Amino acid sequence: MNFGIVIYIIGWVMILEGAFMLLPVVTGVIYGEWMHAGIYLAVGAVSALIGFLLRQRKLQKTTFYAREGFVTVALSWIVLSLIGALPFTISGDIPFYVDALFEIISGFTTTGSSILRDVEALSHANLMWRSFSHWVGGMGVLVFVLAVLPMTGGSSMNIMRAESPGPSVGKLVPKIRQTAMLLYKIYMAMTVVQAVIMLIGGMPLFDALCLTFGTAGTGGFGVLADSCASYSIFLQCVITVFMVLFGVNFSFYYLMLIRKPKDAFKMEEVRWYVIIYLTAVLMITVNLVFEGGGSVLVELQRAAFQVASVMTTTGYATVDFNLWPTFSRAMMVLVMFVGACAGSTGGGIKVSRIVLYVKQIGREIRQQIHPRTVKVIQMDGKPVDKLVLNSANVFLMAYLIIFAVSVMILCTEGFDLTTTFTAVTATINNIGPGLNMVGATGNFADFGVLSKFVMMFDMLAGRLEIIPLLVLFHPGAWRR
Amino acid sequence: MNFGIVIYIIGWVMILEGAFMLLPVVTGVIYGEWMHAGIYLAVGAVSALIGFLLRQRKLQKTTFYAREGFVTVALSWIVLSLIGALPFTISGDIPFYVDALFEIISGFTTTGSSILRDVEALSHANLMWRSFSHWVGGMGVLVFVLAVLPMTGGSSMNIMRAESPGPSVGKLVPKIRQTAMLLYKIYMAMTVVQAVIMLIGGMPLFDALCLTFGTAGTGGFGVLADSCASYSIFLQCVITVFMVLFGVNFSFYYLMLIRKPKDAFKMEEVRWYVIIYLTAVLMITVNLVFEGGGSVLVELQRAAFQVASVMTTTGYATVDFNLWPTFSRAMMVLVMFVGACAGSTGGGIKVSRIVLYVKQIGREIRQQIHPRTVKVIQMDGKPVDKLVLNSANVFLMAYLIIFAVSVMILCTEGFDLTTTFTAVTATINNIGPGLNMVGATGNFADFGVLSKFVMMFDMLAGRLEIIPLLVLFHPGAWRR
Repeated sequence: MNFGIVIYIIGWVMILEGAFMLLPVVTGVIYGEWMHAGIYLAVGAVSALIGFLLRQRKLQKTTFYAREGFVTVALSWIVLSLIGALPFTISGDIPFYVDALFEIISGFTTTGSSILRDVEALSHANLMWRSFSHWVGGMGVLVFVLAVLPMTGGSSMNIMRAESPGPSVGKLVPKIRQTAMLLYKIYMAMTVVQAVIMLIGGMPLFDALCLTFGTAGTGGFGVLADSCASYSIFLQCVITVFMVLFGVNFSFYYLMLIRKPKDAFKMEEVRWYVIIYLTAVLMITVNLVFEGGGSVLVELQRAAFQVASVMTTTGYATVDFNLWPTFSRAMMVLVMFVGACAGSTGGGIKVSRIVLYVKQIGREIRQQIHPRTVKVIQMDGKPVDKLVLNSANVFLMAYLIIFAVSVMILCTEGFDLTTTFTAVTATINNIGPGLNMVGATGNFADFGVLSKFVMMFDMLAGRLEIIPLLVLFHPGAWRR
Repeated sequence: MNFGIVIYIIGWVMILEGAFMLLPVVTGVIYGEWMHAGIYLAVGAVSALIGFLLRQRKLQKTTFYAREGFVTVALSWIVLSLIGALPFTISGDIPFYVDALFEIISGFTTTGSSILRDVEALSHANLMWRSFSHWVGGMGVLVFVLAVLPMTGGSSMNIMRAESPGPSVGKLVPKIRQTAMLLYKIYMAMTVVQAVIMLIGGMPLFDALCLTFGTAGTGGFGVLADSCASYSIFLQCVITVFMVLFGVNFSFYYLMLIRKPKDAFKMEEVRWYVIIYLTAVLMITVNLVFEGGGSVLVELQRAAFQVASVMTTTGYATVDFNLWPTFSRAMMVLVMFVGACAGSTGGGIKVSRIVLYVKQIGREIRQQIHPRTVKVIQMDGKPVDKLVLNSANVFLMAYLIIFAVSVMILCTEGFDLTTTFTAVTATINNIGPGLNMVGATGNFADFGVLSKFVMMFDMLAGRLEIIPLLVLFHPGAWRR
């Protein structure tokens, strides 16, 4: 284990976090929240200073392997959260540090689950930091480090692999630094476009920025108590479209940029993502119209927003889907598990994994019928590596086991089964709201400390796709 | 596709079903239910006659491959159920044939879910047939055919593989016929022992036979409205012990029989089965004592019975666990998914698969830490074949997808989520009762026809472990 490089990179992460905190500082200054601006300035400065000191240590080796990648990513996210939670508690807006930690982990992991009973009571600085954490966490803070940090060769791929969602990256350009930069450029451009359209649509600048960060990172923190219900239909539609867009595999945009639209539209994952999304919207609309008797267009718009919100694991809401009929609620839970595309900012199991699972079932059936022919699983016309398949399969098992254990621990709280089940669903898939007590109009405040730590673990496990976090618990990861 | 041999074996199955119906005939005669006895005699005779005719066709080839094995097993079970449901409807006890079919599929698949609102209204002949179907389905009707049928060589292994639960058989003696006979001998011997002990414990002969069949097959149909609540504590304990015993991998008993107790006790699956069972009992007991304030011994006995019942997927009940605190209810749902051992009469995902999943997670983590060393997964000290691993993995995916689709279809009924979710859990895992409306004191009568067919499919998929049933839907299985 090369501890030197791990500490070196964590130093960089702390410097960056200090820089990120300038945004809430500015926000605080603009709104005259001097104390809060000061807190962010102080915490940010201390963070950057410590980071600078950590970075000063002389490195003996700069290359590192998979286990260093996993440990770096897992520790970076923990450090990021521990520091990021401080301003909430110091400012007194979230006096209990465990709650503050829950809130900021929910932010960085782009979950959007909140322990706040009254979000509108927060200062503008805190609200901005909360939403901005979605944006930072969405594309990944280490991907950002890679974009700005001159690192040696292909071994930094191991960081990228550990932090980026989905079964495989590496479809993009071979050089990591360029890839990381390119990802952030696309991300930044789309963010700016959305913010501008929202401003044109009449949203105030502060709301527009916060909601754009929440959409881009597929996070879900809003600034109003009713999430997005009080915005105009136009703004709701804009958010719908951008939620769907940020749930698309970024390789798609890369292929479009280098003028290979044919290859882009051939991407099986993106196709299935769209098909699943449209199917779910359609079925829920039909269900709502038949059961509730509302107008088709109104219900279609609502379904389109709500499904985009949970499938991309964003978590905004314009209606309380907890009040929907059973079929629609179950459909929402189902797409919560499916999640967005790999290589997007969204969470969940990911469409590409589901596609791989279905293909493996098909292969098994064909294998039973014709035992002697060997079948290779293909994706986008190319054979899928066995190790990738294996990781996708192991992900499912680890996911289910963590899910089951989490539900069991949360059950000791004595809330109803639907609340407990969907609280875990909402956190491990990085969605935000669940059903019943943790529904779109509820919150996570009433859970005990143990349950909150379990859900923090689930949020991190969901964002980092489990294995990096589990590696931390293996003694072999810590041997020199 | 060798249709000749498929039809030949189905002929045998129909003859056997005719023979099995002699038991309700005798029961009907003893209790003076002449009409019902006559119905079973007539249906059994017709079944045997048609079977005899089907068997008369001259076979061109007697060997057959995996796909013939799957198709034979799947079709046999469907034919078995279609015929087995007839007496219920003809006798008028279950006038609607779809309900009768649900009830008998629930019987043969050893599920124990019932559409009956009042089980005590059934005739003795019908009750006996219902319970006996558990015993027939538990070890498998085709395993029985293999035991009595002189078939050529190792290719009949494909039937055995398709019908026997769990990732792999073949640990037993190499010759299929001997294996099949041995399994039935162990099964029969344990059944007789249990029945005798129950008689000694003061249970009437009729109840003792029906309940023993239900326990041996891990089915769950009882003869009283309160399942097992009104039997003495002694009898409840006997049933508890035998439920646990019938959930053990039968290879364990085989190894004991050939005086290799060391090898038997080394079986990892059996060890984990016992550990999981005891852990669940302990945790539920603690939860019940703390929340309800009952006496430790009383709650321990109740927990031991209830956990044995759902973990072995039997489905008997002595208390309404639907009224238990959330933690205990969730623990029950969790062990419902785990299920019993492979190679037992129980259902669920099976302990050995869970063990394989956990081992694969461990391997993945070690692989990430030391990428260059190759790790082989071992079970009972022997390396696990890649194809076995692959089948276990694919099983999980197919299981989850069928589960999700089933829940979605059942949701159109508009019942609450817990009812819907546990109705699918109870049927696909071959357990019997779920929670809320389908809890231990409820039934499945209120579901619509479509939902009932979905649950029938789930019960069959659970018993035959999905792939054989899916093979039926692949056009390749039907080509010559």
